[in-house]
Amino acid sequence: MKKLSFGIDIGGINTAFGLVDQDGEIFAEGTIKTADFPRYDDYAPYIETLVGAMKKLLETLKFKYELVGVGIGAPNASFHSGCIEKPANLWKYQPNNVGLNEEDRIFNIVEDLRAHFPEAKYIAVTNDANAATIGEMIFGNAQGMRDFIMITLGTGLGSGFVANGEMIYGHDGFAGEFGHICVERGGRECGCGRKGCLETYVSATGIKRTAFELMSSTNTPSELRGVSFSEFDALLISKAAQKGDALALEIFRYTGEVLGRAFADITTITSPEAIILFGGLAKAGELIFEPTKRYMEENMMFPFRNKVKLLPSGIQDKNTAVIGASALVWQMYNA
Amino acid sequence: MKKLSFGIDIGGINTAFGLVDQDGEIFAEGTIKTADFPRYDDYAPYIETLVGAMKKLLETLKFKYELVGVGIGAPNASFHSGCIEKPANLWKYQPNNVGLNEEDRIFNIVEDLRAHFPEAKYIAVTNDANAATIGEMIFGNAQGMRDFIMITLGTGLGSGFVANGEMIYGHDGFAGEFGHICVERGGRECGCGRKGCLETYVSATGIKRTAFELMSSTNTPSELRGVSFSEFDALLISKAAQKGDALALEIFRYTGEVLGRAFADITTITSPEAIILFGGLAKAGELIFEPTKRYMEENMMFPFRNKVKLLPSGIQDKNTAVIGASALVWQMYNA
Repeated sequence: MKKLSFGIDIGGINTAFGLVDQDGEIFAEGTIKTADFPRYDDYAPYIETLVGAMKKLLETLKFKYELVGVGIGAPNASFHSGCIEKPANLWKYQPNNVGLNEEDRIFNIVEDLRAHFPEAKYIAVTNDANAATIGEMIFGNAQGMRDFIMITLGTGLGSGFVANGEMIYGHDGFAGEFGHICVERGGRECGCGRKGCLETYVSATGIKRTAFELMSSTNTPSELRGVSFSEFDALLISKAAQKGDALALEIFRYTGEVLGRAFADITTITSPEAIILFGGLAKAGELIFEPTKRYMEENMMFPFRNKVKLLPSGIQDKNTAVIGASALVWQMYNA
Repeated sequence: MKKLSFGIDIGGINTAFGLVDQDGEIFAEGTIKTADFPRYDDYAPYIETLVGAMKKLLETLKFKYELVGVGIGAPNASFHSGCIEKPANLWKYQPNNVGLNEEDRIFNIVEDLRAHFPEAKYIAVTNDANAATIGEMIFGNAQGMRDFIMITLGTGLGSGFVANGEMIYGHDGFAGEFGHICVERGGRECGCGRKGCLETYVSATGIKRTAFELMSSTNTPSELRGVSFSEFDALLISKAAQKGDALALEIFRYTGEVLGRAFADITTITSPEAIILFGGLAKAGELIFEPTKRYMEENMMFPFRNKVKLLPSGIQDKNTAVIGASALVWQMYNA
């Protein structure tokens, strides 16, 4: 009987889910709109809608299967507690929720799904970046590695940290937040309320900020100067750089410098076999890999020099988030 | 029959060793002078002398015992390879060692001791800071903790990193080098060949450098101004601060600021239950703990705020290094 796991990727706009087997193949998939359920009071109907869609998906299967588990990747999720805790963009308080405390905005999604899928032995949640990390370990370029770092360059910078063959969640379940290492004291304002965090420089948002900083501080001509901040997209920089646009190339060099320096520090702490880059910005290939590698080695402490591999994700173009979330289940199943 | 383990602490000046039981009690101890064996060619006679002294120590025991293992703490030691690799201050090449390559300066101390103690089941080496960390986990304030960081403030800044209940050695066996995180780009010259490393600010050497920097940049009167750089000792700063010397207090505030900021970053990566401070500078108590805690919380990312304990070592005044080295054996024995 085919063993399957649900992988669920909860984003601010959409929730994607799929039925994945032990080889990382997706047999069926679906989505619901997370954005249709924005308020605190919407959480219960959201779960109801999600569960309904999942059950319908199971009904489409034309073969016998065993549902081994449900793995969930979500922002602000704690593997230890099984909860999504105070998410910035999900199920927020509205003016009529007077008297409610932000401390109570904790959603026990593992318990809530268990009630609907009692047959699934393994139900677990982790943050989306950790899910992608486990996906890389089970199905991607980190297969067989016991110590590696996964960096997801999306709107922000997500990350996951594996040591001794295990995900490092830390005491609170939130370890591995490399995006919020301070790389520039008093630097760019970060959504986390502090300044100078790595993700304000290295992410789709960060590289866009770098573009506008360099347009203001230099006179380098560039086709990018014709685009407004609101219309600007990180992809434009890759396209311009590929055509040899000097400003765009400098933007990538600078981004690689900041990231490479951070990787040198991260290596002194974690001594990984590899650092794996994933996400939109990583698709820029050598434009981002070359300067990152160069500055990483230049700033690397001697015992680690020329030892740490910098690799692209091995599951880059598939539905990684869903596969990664399912891998959370397969990891527990195989353990 | 009493089960005993050797704990060996190899320093640049002395090598201390002791026979330790499972409760962390030392039954017999001895030392030899490492500094008598400074050259590459001295390594073999060093091992011979050390083994001789260890065997003699065993002979002094008046009861029946079982030698379970030998645990060694040493600079630049790799747990994985069992070797001390290119140590900065041990067994160096002399002018007559022409043609030898620095890459060959690797000392397989585990293998070399195993030849002399075939009865000892567990023989292992790790760097001195990791040994202290395991000592804290087995016998000190980290008992029962699965995720913590240990910081040893000595001449340099040593550190150890435990996650999921295990020492994190990383791919090369050198993980957890928190002393070499860059805290100030282009900052103070570090012995590692780079600039701005944490240990150039926070360590006995670092705090002395801060003292001289502040004596040059401020006019604050201080009794410390009467002491030359060569005669200066970190302990003088504690003594002056305890008497209310304004400059000495500012030195501690600044040191705590640098350390607290670094702890905020380290927490986003490792999410520890506690950070434990050990070593000479940690003995300054509130002088160092108060500013460190304050700046750590001030720079802490929101989900971690007011959650991470800052604690003194629980085996501060005992022969921690020897006990820690022996704990390496007890950890393997208990596993």
